[in-house]
Amino acid sequence: MGIETRSLEVTTQGNTDILDITEAVRHCAQETGFANGLVNVFIGGATAGITTLECEPGAVSDLQAGLERIAPENLGYLHNEAYPDGTGHSPVRAALLGPEVTLPLINGALALGTWQRVVLVDFDNRPRRRKIIVQCLG
Amino acid sequence: MGIETRSLEVTTQGNTDILDITEAVRHCAQETGFANGLVNVFIGGATAGITTLECEPGAVSDLQAGLERIAPENLGYLHNEAYPDGTGHSPVRAALLGPEVTLPLINGALALGTWQRVVLVDFDNRPRRRKIIVQCLG
Amino acid sequence: MGIETRSLEVTTQGNTDILDITEAVRHCAQETGFANGLVNVFIGGATAGITTLECEPGAVSDLQAGLERIAPENLGYLHNEAYPDGTGHSPVRAALLGPEVTLPLINGALALGTWQRVVLVDFDNRPRRRKIIVQCLG
Repeated sequence: MGIETRSLEVTTQGNTDILDITEAVRHCAQETGFANGLVNVFIGGATAGITTLECEPGAVSDLQAGLERIAPENLGYLHNEAYPDGTGHSPVRAALLGPEVTLPLINGALALGTWQRVVLVDFDNRPRRRKIIVQCLG
Repeated sequence: MGIETRSLEVTTQGNTDILDITEAVRHCAQETGFANGLVNVFIGGATAGITTLECEPGAVSDLQAGLERIAPENLGYLHNEAYPDGTGHSPVRAALLGPEVTLPLINGALALGTWQRVVLVDFDNRPRRRKIIVQCLG
Repeated sequence: MGIETRSLEVTTQGNTDILDITEAVRHCAQETGFANGLVNVFIGGATAGITTLECEPGAVSDLQAGLERIAPENLGYLHNEAYPDGTGHSPVRAALLGPEVTLPLINGALALGTWQRVVLVDFDNRPRRRKIIVQCLG
């Protein structure tokens, strides 16, 4: 068994932008040559999250609306009193969604369902360049 | 160190059915003979999730009610406009709950708390046969 | 590759107390001498969760407020009818937040963002002593 660290960089629009990173993650995993193992997809940063989602445009919008219900952007966040940049909702959404997903790698393939995609969700309120770590064990 | 892929199949009632899969996961882990490692419990599919829960019937109902508050079934989901099967809430709930949990294996045992159980939550709106991957490293 | 099990103990105030455990997790990881791998931070227990958060006091309060919106303490939980200790909200919040986070270890360092901290969130309604497992692969 071994460990291979890969990473990928994406540009987001911020504002709960949801990016399908499945193909890039798959490419990282396949580059390692590992047949069986775990693939940990991690975002370093306190204003973004990683999960899986059916990336049909309606479902993407519905998840954005769900996150707005849970932590509305225009609420009186204490964070905004200390740092008046309007990102009070961002760490709340990020902590609830979580920064990583760990996927089984089986016979060289990610064990995703048919419509299940790996997504980065960026909760900052401006475009960002994001680096995602793809830590592969196999 | 090695990797062993196990899986288990369950039948759910859909509609946020919560199934305690702890004993089956434990059986998978113990079959490997690993003493120490990680056990990744993953659902392939965009309309179900995995977490841990105290599986007392009241808490199970309370979690179902909480998910209904977060992403009510009868909201105007855009997903339902493209795919009018009434599952607009399903990918939202699934993405928020997440598709996997990764547990420490210590001396051949899952490091769960006394009342903490591993559960599959099925957000589809009909009964489903589900396959859960139990990826064991040790 | 090898596996090292570490643990840490903390005292919480309960009531959605949020504790920054980053330095203790980092210490556990560095003690192993592993350069590259995965660090799984897991809470055994059905009334607490683990995530990452910007631990600025405002953001900490904002996350507590967000969890109160999602699963208010004073709702009619069925759990409280069976176990009238007032912790009906606790397993709901814990299941939604999740019991673990799995972090990449790269060149001996946790791959966290600048403001991103590993936190324990305790949803019990009284002070608790909590043991967190830090399962390290490398």
